[in-house]
Amino acid sequence: MRWSRTFIPTLKETPSDAEIPSHRLMIKAGLIRPLGAGTYTYLPLGYRSLRKAAEIVREEMDRAGAIEVHMPALHPLSLWERTGRAPVMGDVLFKIKDRRGRALTLGPTHEEVITDLASNELRSYRQMPVTFYQIQTKFRDEERPRAGVIRTREFLMKDAYSFDADQAGLDASYQAMYDAYVRIYKRCGLVATPVEAESGAMGGTGSAEFMIVTPSGEDSLALCPACDYAANSERCELPDIQETEPGAGTRKRLDTPGVSTVEKVCEFLKTKPRKLVKTLVYSVSPGGEGEEGENPLTIAVLVRGDHEVNEAKLARLFPGRTVALADDETVEKATGAPVGFAGPVGLKEIGEIDEIIADHTVAAMTNFVTGANEADAHFVGTNRGRDFEVSRYEDLRVAVEGDPCPRCGAALDVKRGIEIGHVFKLGTKYSVALGANFLGEDGKERPIIMGCYGIGVSRIVAAAIEQNYDENGIIWPRAIAPYEVAVLSLNVTSEEVSRVAEEAYEALSAAGIEVIYDDRDVRAGVKFKDADLVGFPVRVAVGEKSLANGGVEIKRRDSKDFEVVPASEVVERVRALLEE
Amino acid sequence: MRWSRTFIPTLKETPSDAEIPSHRLMIKAGLIRPLGAGTYTYLPLGYRSLRKAAEIVREEMDRAGAIEVHMPALHPLSLWERTGRAPVMGDVLFKIKDRRGRALTLGPTHEEVITDLASNELRSYRQMPVTFYQIQTKFRDEERPRAGVIRTREFLMKDAYSFDADQAGLDASYQAMYDAYVRIYKRCGLVATPVEAESGAMGGTGSAEFMIVTPSGEDSLALCPACDYAANSERCELPDIQETEPGAGTRKRLDTPGVSTVEKVCEFLKTKPRKLVKTLVYSVSPGGEGEEGENPLTIAVLVRGDHEVNEAKLARLFPGRTVALADDETVEKATGAPVGFAGPVGLKEIGEIDEIIADHTVAAMTNFVTGANEADAHFVGTNRGRDFEVSRYEDLRVAVEGDPCPRCGAALDVKRGIEIGHVFKLGTKYSVALGANFLGEDGKERPIIMGCYGIGVSRIVAAAIEQNYDENGIIWPRAIAPYEVAVLSLNVTSEEVSRVAEEAYEALSAAGIEVIYDDRDVRAGVKFKDADLVGFPVRVAVGEKSLANGGVEIKRRDSKDFEVVPASEVVERVRALLEE
Repeated sequence: MRWSRTFIPTLKETPSDAEIPSHRLMIKAGLIRPLGAGTYTYLPLGYRSLRKAAEIVREEMDRAGAIEVHMPALHPLSLWERTGRAPVMGDVLFKIKDRRGRALTLGPTHEEVITDLASNELRSYRQMPVTFYQIQTKFRDEERPRAGVIRTREFLMKDAYSFDADQAGLDASYQAMYDAYVRIYKRCGLVATPVEAESGAMGGTGSAEFMIVTPSGEDSLALCPACDYAANSERCELPDIQETEPGAGTRKRLDTPGVSTVEKVCEFLKTKPRKLVKTLVYSVSPGGEGEEGENPLTIAVLVRGDHEVNEAKLARLFPGRTVALADDETVEKATGAPVGFAGPVGLKEIGEIDEIIADHTVAAMTNFVTGANEADAHFVGTNRGRDFEVSRYEDLRVAVEGDPCPRCGAALDVKRGIEIGHVFKLGTKYSVALGANFLGEDGKERPIIMGCYGIGVSRIVAAAIEQNYDENGIIWPRAIAPYEVAVLSLNVTSEEVSRVAEEAYEALSAAGIEVIYDDRDVRAGVKFKDADLVGFPVRVAVGEKSLANGGVEIKRRDSKDFEVVPASEVVERVRALLEE
Repeated sequence: MRWSRTFIPTLKETPSDAEIPSHRLMIKAGLIRPLGAGTYTYLPLGYRSLRKAAEIVREEMDRAGAIEVHMPALHPLSLWERTGRAPVMGDVLFKIKDRRGRALTLGPTHEEVITDLASNELRSYRQMPVTFYQIQTKFRDEERPRAGVIRTREFLMKDAYSFDADQAGLDASYQAMYDAYVRIYKRCGLVATPVEAESGAMGGTGSAEFMIVTPSGEDSLALCPACDYAANSERCELPDIQETEPGAGTRKRLDTPGVSTVEKVCEFLKTKPRKLVKTLVYSVSPGGEGEEGENPLTIAVLVRGDHEVNEAKLARLFPGRTVALADDETVEKATGAPVGFAGPVGLKEIGEIDEIIADHTVAAMTNFVTGANEADAHFVGTNRGRDFEVSRYEDLRVAVEGDPCPRCGAALDVKRGIEIGHVFKLGTKYSVALGANFLGEDGKERPIIMGCYGIGVSRIVAAAIEQNYDENGIIWPRAIAPYEVAVLSLNVTSEEVSRVAEEAYEALSAAGIEVIYDDRDVRAGVKFKDADLVGFPVRVAVGEKSLANGGVEIKRRDSKDFEVVPASEVVERVRALLEE
């Protein structure tokens, strides 16, 4: 492809609103352009990379024996109501009324639709195991679209669904997908870390996420340097702690005017966050899967000042219900104080809190600081038992650097990560809800056992950039580079330079190598800069100087070295560099 | 691919709700399954054909120099308001409010989005000509989804948009797309007829549709057997007719109880439709592109009883306004009679009708039948002038068989057709509305001149079936067949049969031919039936009988002939048959 015949609007300036390196570079290198909030147009080079990633995914799905189908994006909302997920997904579901007033949604994922298909088409154990997949556009009305194509409202996803007659079948289907994912990431040039994961709104019995470790990630990962344990920090279990003797310090009320955050309290009282107990108020609503008749609860959660509540762990204490931070009004009513001054002392007596739960860590704290349930006041010297009672100690916090590995006890590393794939053992949640039953070999009818497996294809492209860039631009892994090689004619007014560049372009193309030929009438410096910015794996530069030196200059994007080789050897040398 | 490892749920029964052959066959052969109204899941074979068609489209777009991008399906509705198309598209636009209350729509086409991109990225005549295309999912809330994937609410489309600095550039860009379309249809095995077309809601200066001629089509085509004239009947111009002397018959009122259709009137009065004048009431609203301040009009349109009003032609008389059949209430108020008894006599005097317009044909009619503007009554012996006045005669009807060709005067053929592509010269409608201007060579700023070009990829698949089937099933054109060859093992319990069949499958696969291998443990009759139903271009059957006859039986799907060849020659013979 000639540069002048395609469309690569590179920018000189770095876009100011881009949040993370891949976002910045995808805009700057002319791969994407925003349309609205969380939606992007893929320009020619970006779309080439996206299609290459999709094709690798397709090949590995086929290799794993999965069967490709293509389902609609428009779903009858009724299917989502039958599985109980319409309220769980909430605002993430785009909702539409069609011209006849029928309720539709745009598929954020396809468990409902594929299970509906299975309920019509899969009748016998003889039709299983079977895994269907599609590479299709998903729609999610994300609360906060961010980071370019990392989190958008419309994106390309590969989603696969396995159907098995028994648990052993599911285990095998799951493993086949897991292995395919490992091959996909490897081929795409990604270093992916599989971690134990929460199943979240999907339901099910087990799941793993594939992560790339990067400072700009929105997930937190707990990684053990000693054994192979790795988990989403949400999922990482932390140990019980033996309750210690409470302290004997005298509890005192202090005026703390306007001091409403852990940071301010520590500064004001010259203490450390680990000497504080934070009190957070949560609302537990009946929601989710229709546990009607239960009343909403208001609960207080205590964690050490330097810890964060892990809402996934908290939610596991209230299965089938929805747990969320209480709104300000509820907090003020429950504590009798403005937000920022909650504490456990006297809290139950106010009468609005149903239960006080504490993280295990609190069981070993003495003489700590807490809010006084009064504006502009805190207690110091607070102690368990004497000053307040906790109904139970639970594992309620996010793992932090140095916490013990739940498998071997070594100190955990905590890193940021971006999720690039997720595999789930779903079980029968969807098949039961939608009546997808099959006749077993014994003639009995049972619900089909399902798994589901997702990869954000758009996200693979961004993740590859997150892991492969430098100050000059992207450094594409070969397999998903928009073109493998850029041939630069450094002086289009020179007949000799043009001839040699053109011949190199033709020879490389004829050899089946994907080449872009920078034939623009612009300065050599612009061409070098753009080639580095877009990040083609190999660059072949032809100029008067290289010709004087005996040929063309060849350089890998990820190396500082270059070599000058005779024009006749360009194909051979480029191929060798690409295959290195 | 082994039949047992993919998913081909063929049906024995013909689906009763399928409207046209391709719909029936796509369901029966297990290519698609409906999800909701106007949405389909593509099953493995259907999706293979769809992807093959898409790939042919992509190759020909690339060959024509068009540049592939990929735009979002979610559009800010504001873009559609800026071009004035939000009200014109009306209910066809799916409308969404996102979680923050912002209005979005699902793109039924992408003129707005690409022009917005062009307004940001194309600044100079040096960047043109340029044509962008995408192969992407479109969403249209069709009033009546029909005929399987022919008219759906979600479908795969190739849409391309050209940007030029002058009209000559547009002409060249348009021709390049036109030529690419001709190549695409040819490669897909379709016989496509280009016809002159209405520009409809797209605006613009010229357009052509590509049609396949088929009795199940929803469009009507006027084709001249003498010259090369071909047009959508909507577009086909019909000649003026010299007004003749009115007749001298006496007008008489007759009781016609319950006789409210042309058919019933003819039966009751023992006459022919061509002796009747039909009177239709239309509402003309200010709508469309904001011609505010104009009042809505109510008009009466007269056509001969055997003719149909051509609403596209009628709409051209009221540019920028929306013309639609009046509702029953308006008709009753305007005519003083129930629907079915309208007539021109005394109509103006009722005071609700702003204008009476007649088709040219009416100018030559005498002593005709009309409604009497009274329940259960008609007039016979009605005549122009004496009984009523017409404000103007216009070309207002759909062309019918035998009408004169507007180019050479020969009698036209009228056939049904399905649109499979549309090319438009748009001009500057969108670039003006969205401020997509460029700096010309003379340093002056002007709006970019645009064209747009669409192919329904899903529809290509259905159209290919409409043109290629028999009583046993589909007869795929090779290029978009899900597999080129089916190898049938007619007795899986015979070791010899299985071995030869397996070897044929392996040999054909190794030769780069796309083969499906029917390895199921079912009767030979079922395999023959399914192979014919799905319609693979070539069938290779291996059974005890064929082996006894010296090898394998090879047959083209579109021929009754078969031949038995030695197993060693199967690749060579199949290749020859495929290339025939």
